[in-house]
Amino acid sequence: MNRKLIVRVLGAILAIEGLAMIPSFLISLYFRDGDTAALGYSILITIAVGAAMYLIPKSDKKSYLRLKEGFIIVALGWILMSAFGAIPYMLSGMFTHFDSAFFESVSGFTTTGASVFEGFENYMHGVVFWRATTHWIGGMGVLVLTLALLPKLTGRTAHLVKAESPGPSLSKLVPKTGQTAKILYRIYILLTLLEFIALLFCGLSPYDAAVHAFATAGTGGFSNYGSSVAAFDSVPVDIVITVFMFMFGINFALYYKFLIGERFKAFWRDEEFRTYFFIAISFTLAITLFNLPYYESFFTSLRYSSFQLSSIISTTGFVTADYSRWPVASQFLIILAMFIGSCAGSTAGGIKVIRVKMLMKLSRRNVLAAGRPKKVDVIRIDKKAVDENIVSQVAQFAVMYIALVLIGGFLISLEGKYDIITNLTASLTCVSNVGPGFGSVGPVDNFVGYGVWGKSVLSLLMLFGRLELLPMFILFTRSAWHKY
Amino acid sequence: MNRKLIVRVLGAILAIEGLAMIPSFLISLYFRDGDTAALGYSILITIAVGAAMYLIPKSDKKSYLRLKEGFIIVALGWILMSAFGAIPYMLSGMFTHFDSAFFESVSGFTTTGASVFEGFENYMHGVVFWRATTHWIGGMGVLVLTLALLPKLTGRTAHLVKAESPGPSLSKLVPKTGQTAKILYRIYILLTLLEFIALLFCGLSPYDAAVHAFATAGTGGFSNYGSSVAAFDSVPVDIVITVFMFMFGINFALYYKFLIGERFKAFWRDEEFRTYFFIAISFTLAITLFNLPYYESFFTSLRYSSFQLSSIISTTGFVTADYSRWPVASQFLIILAMFIGSCAGSTAGGIKVIRVKMLMKLSRRNVLAAGRPKKVDVIRIDKKAVDENIVSQVAQFAVMYIALVLIGGFLISLEGKYDIITNLTASLTCVSNVGPGFGSVGPVDNFVGYGVWGKSVLSLLMLFGRLELLPMFILFTRSAWHKY
Repeated sequence: MNRKLIVRVLGAILAIEGLAMIPSFLISLYFRDGDTAALGYSILITIAVGAAMYLIPKSDKKSYLRLKEGFIIVALGWILMSAFGAIPYMLSGMFTHFDSAFFESVSGFTTTGASVFEGFENYMHGVVFWRATTHWIGGMGVLVLTLALLPKLTGRTAHLVKAESPGPSLSKLVPKTGQTAKILYRIYILLTLLEFIALLFCGLSPYDAAVHAFATAGTGGFSNYGSSVAAFDSVPVDIVITVFMFMFGINFALYYKFLIGERFKAFWRDEEFRTYFFIAISFTLAITLFNLPYYESFFTSLRYSSFQLSSIISTTGFVTADYSRWPVASQFLIILAMFIGSCAGSTAGGIKVIRVKMLMKLSRRNVLAAGRPKKVDVIRIDKKAVDENIVSQVAQFAVMYIALVLIGGFLISLEGKYDIITNLTASLTCVSNVGPGFGSVGPVDNFVGYGVWGKSVLSLLMLFGRLELLPMFILFTRSAWHKY
Repeated sequence: MNRKLIVRVLGAILAIEGLAMIPSFLISLYFRDGDTAALGYSILITIAVGAAMYLIPKSDKKSYLRLKEGFIIVALGWILMSAFGAIPYMLSGMFTHFDSAFFESVSGFTTTGASVFEGFENYMHGVVFWRATTHWIGGMGVLVLTLALLPKLTGRTAHLVKAESPGPSLSKLVPKTGQTAKILYRIYILLTLLEFIALLFCGLSPYDAAVHAFATAGTGGFSNYGSSVAAFDSVPVDIVITVFMFMFGINFALYYKFLIGERFKAFWRDEEFRTYFFIAISFTLAITLFNLPYYESFFTSLRYSSFQLSSIISTTGFVTADYSRWPVASQFLIILAMFIGSCAGSTAGGIKVIRVKMLMKLSRRNVLAAGRPKKVDVIRIDKKAVDENIVSQVAQFAVMYIALVLIGGFLISLEGKYDIITNLTASLTCVSNVGPGFGSVGPVDNFVGYGVWGKSVLSLLMLFGRLELLPMFILFTRSAWHKY
């Protein structure tokens, strides 16, 4: 185990996190909201610890990372980053208990958006902006960011990006990982800016627009209003955010292809995008129809149905309507969307559309092949044959994912709080990094009712989900802690 | 497609079903309960149709069944058998609508035990005995029975038994399938008799003992009392039924090994049995502890917790306590048990312990292998390596199973009735052939509230679950209906 290198990389992550707090500090200074000192000290602590970890270990001559070390760095990096990200919440007095501050920080970085914060009426601009910033950093990935800024940090870096990026395969846009990371972040910044400007046009203040653009970009869902996007009660705002939530659920490689000349063909040629689009449209229409008796007109139903569906399937978690009061068929589609999530290579969570599509093809093949045992058809995505090992791993991933949701639901139930549907959907919404669930963690409630145990389990579930299981599981194996 | 042979086999199934109605007819005659004519006519109709189908098609010289034809026979056989099994319910006036009668019949044969019947206060001995009989026939499988009685019916018969028997692989006890079928049925009769006698010793009337022995043996759960086994409120009865429910969840091949000389080693040597035993004991103890605040003493808690857990994990569905009022952690374990079910080669439903065990080993391997990509450990069950294809198929089966539960829940939600937890667990309990669920289909409720659509979907889900997905799925493919 290359411990020195691991410590150095973790140090770099912390230093970058400290730098990322600076905009929140400046905003706090501008609004004179009383958080300035809290944010200032947080920056100093985080950068100091990060710099120490980065500089003190003498680097070995031939330092490169093994695959397993990549997983461990990612898992530890996310836990460490969440812990330090909670410092502003503690110092500012936003939370008095560390378990709540840590939960909020994990929820931010994993872009879940499940909250245990309740005091929005006298909230603080700086810290709440930091809360939105964690979404933005967590969305594209902090290691991707680290590699974009420090491409020479380690020898082989593809491991790190692979371990942090959602989806069964990372499409490298250009041969060098560091270069790919830079391109991804440029697209990310561009799209975030576009949404920021669109929200300004809708009449939002620059502060509100920035917070909501950050939360949408990371598909996180933290708003600076207790009633989320419903606070604006504006059709243009709803439309802009609905569209951008959907857009941040698309594989970023497609935007790159779009920009380098393929234009809209880049999207339509991509099987995962077509499936994602089809699911989003068909679910939206179905929910709109189911909800007709609940709303006064078709367009009102379409407005709230499309927003909520886009929010859930992109695993953002903004709300403008209480979907837990909708007809039960609509609720079921919301739950299915929580499982499915969006495209690989986006900032969203869930099982991912590409895996769901493969599983559908796999199921179809199983049924058709049952009659003729010797012939096995190859599964094709984008007309290319998928390796049978990957096909098999996708099925295993789905099983582990669902098992984690069930076991997570059981574990939080040990606290003895709430009913099955609350605890089951709390687990699901955290593993899928969505935010709201059903029952007592529904769209108009939050997670404040869980105790230390519940919050700790849910924090872990969010990390398991964001890092797609393996990095976190490896942290629980003995060999992760042994020299070899 | 060998249509003539298919029709002949289906005819044989119906003829045997007609014969199986005779004991119910005699019981009706004995109790003079007014069902005698209804049962008499049902027998005549079923045997007449069956005999006509069996005798009229001229058999081809070289008649053998392809694998796919095996699946189609099994699927059609179960649907046909359920339809004819509903005739006594209709003729006796137990139900006035065919959808309810068909639901009750499917629920009987698939050994689910979900009921839409409510009039136990003035029930009819004969028809209710037929209701219990359907559990007994469905438990071991009607095709297994047909082959035990008519081993020369088709050339190659292993397909048929394989398609009907639960679990990833059928252990042939002896080289000939017909002979294996006979042995299985002998063990089945023996165990049923043992329970019947034990229940007589507990003071039950011969009629009550027979009904409950049949319902336990098939892991079905239809009682002749509205309050199920709680009606007896007897510790000895609870203990006997708890133990036998567990026993009917064990692979019958182990009883055969037990009888031919291996004795108890047969069980302990079997990895699936050990896992099943461990899950049942650990879940029971956990639930007993969670339920302590709910019951006056440890033993009362143990009594009700062990009965309910044994009932759910064996997918029987008898109840003596309303588990939906237990602490939420207990409820979660009940739901997990509904997914898991019992051993392959038993009369029980669920994903099956052997598959769950394989998936646990698979998950462990995925985590350990993530660090060292080139080495892939073989998965071993009973110290023997499992073929990677089977491992892969087990994961795919689990995904299809869970997807079916979710989609089934959505489909019944289209009726607009009940809440998520009711519809989700209604779907789960039907696919796993358990019986009761949670919410409005909880242990003290039944399925009478669903309409024609809901009952039809749930009937299909029970058949999908009992036949382990493939045979029913194949029925929905185009090629099943084409000549080739």
